[in-house]
Amino acid sequence: MSEALKVGIAGLGTVGSGTVRALRDNAEALAARCGRPIELVAVSARDRGKDRGLDLSGCRWHDDALALAGDPAVEVVVELIGGSDGPAKALVEAALAAGKPVVTANKALLAHHGSALARQAEAAGAGLYYEAAVAGGIPVIGLLRDGLAGNRIERVAGILNGTCNYILTTMRESGREFADVLAEAQALGYAEADPGFDIDGVDAAHKLAILTALAFGCEVDFEAVRVQGIRQIAAIDIGFAEELGLRIKLLGVATRSGEGVAQAVEPVMVPFGSPLAAVEGVFNAVLAEGDFIGTIMAEGAGAGERPTASAVVADLAALARGDRRPVFGVPAASLQRLPAAPDEGQLGAFYLRIMVIDRPGVIAEVAAALRDEEISVEALLQRGRDPGESVPVVITTHETTAGRMRRAVERIGAIEACLEPPRLIRIEGE
Amino acid sequence: MSEALKVGIAGLGTVGSGTVRALRDNAEALAARCGRPIELVAVSARDRGKDRGLDLSGCRWHDDALALAGDPAVEVVVELIGGSDGPAKALVEAALAAGKPVVTANKALLAHHGSALARQAEAAGAGLYYEAAVAGGIPVIGLLRDGLAGNRIERVAGILNGTCNYILTTMRESGREFADVLAEAQALGYAEADPGFDIDGVDAAHKLAILTALAFGCEVDFEAVRVQGIRQIAAIDIGFAEELGLRIKLLGVATRSGEGVAQAVEPVMVPFGSPLAAVEGVFNAVLAEGDFIGTIMAEGAGAGERPTASAVVADLAALARGDRRPVFGVPAASLQRLPAAPDEGQLGAFYLRIMVIDRPGVIAEVAAALRDEEISVEALLQRGRDPGESVPVVITTHETTAGRMRRAVERIGAIEACLEPPRLIRIEGE
Repeated sequence: MSEALKVGIAGLGTVGSGTVRALRDNAEALAARCGRPIELVAVSARDRGKDRGLDLSGCRWHDDALALAGDPAVEVVVELIGGSDGPAKALVEAALAAGKPVVTANKALLAHHGSALARQAEAAGAGLYYEAAVAGGIPVIGLLRDGLAGNRIERVAGILNGTCNYILTTMRESGREFADVLAEAQALGYAEADPGFDIDGVDAAHKLAILTALAFGCEVDFEAVRVQGIRQIAAIDIGFAEELGLRIKLLGVATRSGEGVAQAVEPVMVPFGSPLAAVEGVFNAVLAEGDFIGTIMAEGAGAGERPTASAVVADLAALARGDRRPVFGVPAASLQRLPAAPDEGQLGAFYLRIMVIDRPGVIAEVAAALRDEEISVEALLQRGRDPGESVPVVITTHETTAGRMRRAVERIGAIEACLEPPRLIRIEGE
Repeated sequence: MSEALKVGIAGLGTVGSGTVRALRDNAEALAARCGRPIELVAVSARDRGKDRGLDLSGCRWHDDALALAGDPAVEVVVELIGGSDGPAKALVEAALAAGKPVVTANKALLAHHGSALARQAEAAGAGLYYEAAVAGGIPVIGLLRDGLAGNRIERVAGILNGTCNYILTTMRESGREFADVLAEAQALGYAEADPGFDIDGVDAAHKLAILTALAFGCEVDFEAVRVQGIRQIAAIDIGFAEELGLRIKLLGVATRSGEGVAQAVEPVMVPFGSPLAAVEGVFNAVLAEGDFIGTIMAEGAGAGERPTASAVVADLAALARGDRRPVFGVPAASLQRLPAAPDEGQLGAFYLRIMVIDRPGVIAEVAAALRDEEISVEALLQRGRDPGESVPVVITTHETTAGRMRRAVERIGAIEACLEPPRLIRIEGE
């Protein structure tokens, strides 16, 4: 058996501790699978005195994470510090500069600096692996890069944030409103005290930007991701969706067309029969469409100590076996600069809910606004009658463009009898 | 860019033709992803004159597939002939003997000769890749071997035969009986004229035996797979399952325990909420449970020209990039010989349907048989009353052992009022 692969880990939070445990618990199997042991030789974390329940004897301790890059005993640096800049970025750059491959779970770093880091890694001849950065334990990076290598991928869609999926699932099951369920999720530890990063879609957008680059072989373009979170989702819309055979999910979707790449994270409705509709609670899932594979989906735990550690160790195992992969699937120099496809022309069906005064003629005004944009109505639901009072009217459309729909909605919103801003949610085919 | 990887394909049926198309259609992307082109240099098939709609100019033609192993221009042999013995086996052995790596979609070959071929491949220093042999396009071999490398896998379960899943899905949706739906599936080309290989579970058992070896790092033991197909599934049981919140699937399940490895392909009931329950029609899915990842599932097209070609090309891409993997994840010499766990002790809940004369006292006799084996009843359904005539009685149990359940069923089957052999179907947790 060959010499051990010597690993240094920066960051001993949840994922770091899980990684240490996985390397220890499955050391023998890993050595058999990789043809050599994977050995933890050094660590770095903020508080040396903290009891993490880990046996770190035999490991060097570095108070400064950067020292891992310079430690001659460390062959591979595992960056689990987090954050798009600061010490995490400094460490990754220093490790690559020293010619050491890097394994990271840092989606923010890759979303913001992925293309530059890919170039640096390639110039240094050192790999940059990030299976743990997207969808936690689900090995979706390997799936897209290796398993679908024979495909031209046209579309990637994913439930990429477990907190949002948990909140939406609980809202549907309980009929309760967003704020109420969020508060409970915070109490249970499923949502952060400062939840914006998750519920406003930023975390999912980081992950989507990475998937987009890998799937389409283009530069990472986080700025081009259109992002909308789930704060605006109301119990009434979840109820109507259910009635229509649809389920609301916060989806990240990237599509490639002649116009460029469209990237969006937003709440969408998916039909009950769609595999994504069945992904509930804190689970994540990624679906890809390729010209040969057709549609494929992988589902699993998108976060947590042990699943994320599983992904980190998968990267270490690949390195131990001597695999070499371009960071985003193709050499950095051949990553395309694809334009962001204008949203206006994106095709889709839509769900529209308006709150209108229940009086004759209102529906005719709404219908006229849709007709003038050549939008075809698929269904119209007006539940309950309350003459002179506000009632919800729900319309689903056949396929149209986002631009037409937006114009129609602006006109509908301006109708005098329309009392609140209309709620518009895209309906995905699957 | 390095020299092309030179490929010879034996067998130009559906998958072979698809592979030629994938290599041509995505040649440029493949070269970028692998750092070198993948070039088809030779083919072999039975009928040279047949029009396959493929441009094979520039390829050498061999009438005898074995000649591919000896063709000095061929670096990698792709075996798409099929069959557990005969020309497929001869070709794979000859290629490995010549030190050439082999890519195959042949599940029967690997199920019957996998361990021996793994030893031969290893001795020759040539890889043996088989992503296309299990679950068609779903890259489940890579997922288990690479993506879950950091895990101890305890259980693998899969919907591994699209024909059976299509028939069961159609039976449920239409309420029709097996024979009727099978005939329609044959007319539509979803089932073979001689359907036994699929509907009796043999094909799924081949695939399960391969997954088992890979997941647990043990020798391939096809003979140890307990196999039962779907011929006995009646519309009435599908209906009762639905009423109980369960769905019938032909599942291949392998579990590892202190007693050894249990491998079974059989119809089982899974709860609606299970990810496997949502896999419908011709789709396949594989679910794995590992000590770090938790539960993960991948779902996609389990057969067909293009999806299966996608898997063949994934293997070729791995070879082109210089990956090296032991055939079943660990060196052949360290594949364990794990005993087949005795079925008697397997824990599970059960669905039992009996057809009994509707008269007082029958249920008491049935209940006594269960009680004497310490089997706890979870639910009992007796739908419809027809005094003196035969009515169905359905019982679901709490967890018990297969041995206890079998003994109870034998006794129940012998009750005078029990008019048909009882139908027993295991209920899976997920």
